[in-house]
Amino acid sequence: MNILITNDDGIRADGIIELAKEISTIANVYVVAPESQRSATGHAITIHSPIMINDEYIDDKIKAYSISGTPADCVKVGIEALFKDIDIDLVLSGINNGPNLGTDVVYSGTASAAIEGLIQNKPSIAISYDQFNIGKEVYRESARYVVSLINSIKNKLELLEDCILNVNIPKGEVKGFKITKLGDRKYDNVVDERLSPYGKKYIWIGGDVKELDQDEDSDIVAVNNGYISITPVNIEMTNLRKIDKLKEIDL
Amino acid sequence: MNILITNDDGIRADGIIELAKEISTIANVYVVAPESQRSATGHAITIHSPIMINDEYIDDKIKAYSISGTPADCVKVGIEALFKDIDIDLVLSGINNGPNLGTDVVYSGTASAAIEGLIQNKPSIAISYDQFNIGKEVYRESARYVVSLINSIKNKLELLEDCILNVNIPKGEVKGFKITKLGDRKYDNVVDERLSPYGKKYIWIGGDVKELDQDEDSDIVAVNNGYISITPVNIEMTNLRKIDKLKEIDL
Repeated sequence: MNILITNDDGIRADGIIELAKEISTIANVYVVAPESQRSATGHAITIHSPIMINDEYIDDKIKAYSISGTPADCVKVGIEALFKDIDIDLVLSGINNGPNLGTDVVYSGTASAAIEGLIQNKPSIAISYDQFNIGKEVYRESARYVVSLINSIKNKLELLEDCILNVNIPKGEVKGFKITKLGDRKYDNVVDERLSPYGKKYIWIGGDVKELDQDEDSDIVAVNNGYISITPVNIEMTNLRKIDKLKEIDL
Repeated sequence: MNILITNDDGIRADGIIELAKEISTIANVYVVAPESQRSATGHAITIHSPIMINDEYIDDKIKAYSISGTPADCVKVGIEALFKDIDIDLVLSGINNGPNLGTDVVYSGTASAAIEGLIQNKPSIAISYDQFNIGKEVYRESARYVVSLINSIKNKLELLEDCILNVNIPKGEVKGFKITKLGDRKYDNVVDERLSPYGKKYIWIGGDVKELDQDEDSDIVAVNNGYISITPVNIEMTNLRKIDKLKEIDL
């Protein structure tokens, strides 16, 4: 298999390095990642400035590129330019530093890179780890679960013709895999208002995760219970149920 | 009504200035927009740097803010901080310089600002004009259609509890409104590879719209035929149809 690997934490993040190394044991890997941290970039693409391309290596062995663009740019530029002569079979995005669960998927650079893979007609999987700043060894172990998942679905990749898989790996002991829905994630205390030393107002966006009731079959519950959550996520955004109701309005 | 207005082209764009002026004839308007051009930013939010806040005015009369963040940041910061004491009834994003049709909605900062409004439990509408770099007068005329749309739906805003309206205004004569689905938009010649004067490779993302067969009830067909397209767009991203099929795989 030919597997394109990207992420949103940048080319020097442990998550992509360990993923690329582990995947290189079962496939040809083609790596292109942002040159620096680009998380929470959603599905941004770069059209108001050019995208610079840098030569890189992963672990001194795996040829890679970093670019001055976003995660979605990486997949677009990877498939349409850097690796245009390669028949890419699968796009992997991750392993992300921290979870991408529930409503947060809309903000996720990790998921958006996979969604760009889907737009490019490639089976695509986003992978995140449910804790921040873990060590290389935990990423390596997590990458082995990704290899196992790829082995299970590599003959059924047609299932990914209209959705990506959004995968979240729990911290601690892994009890197995669960197919899930996106849960509901909201935050308290979202903005932190401050004053600069010069009296100018500025804001940090952050917040604490709200305790909300979740469906038993949600990604949030699965990960909290020690399961690797796999959610099929799509970009069919039209709300078809509302079309007839809107047509009743006299416009 | 209290209406929050934002955009992705920045606080100095004609589209938001004319929209704010026109909407101020029917409602109290609260304006917060990016300090510079932030189109194609998708649902990016700013979490790796603080967001600076600047005082602004629209047309010397309407108090406004610009921020160093993205369109989604504008709505988050507007509702949670700048206008937190105001009960916002509706979020408007636009009028965008150029269309946001079909698959492109996933990249659109204009649509993402409205989707952030939906996440914040506010009825939200994204408005785009199907041509680039039009004059103030065309935006003013378009803003009057937005006023007309608001008057038609202001007593039915509960329809927007689980979707935004993505509105595209056609160039030329307007024949009326059509409720539509998102069409299929793809591009040819997406990457333009160049060399810097110093021999370094870089890329511009762009491309030409592909001629694709479209559903008759798509936004693309409606706008091409001279109708204002209104598409209900949501963020329920779980692909429910695939859940049972994925459960059949031995993981």
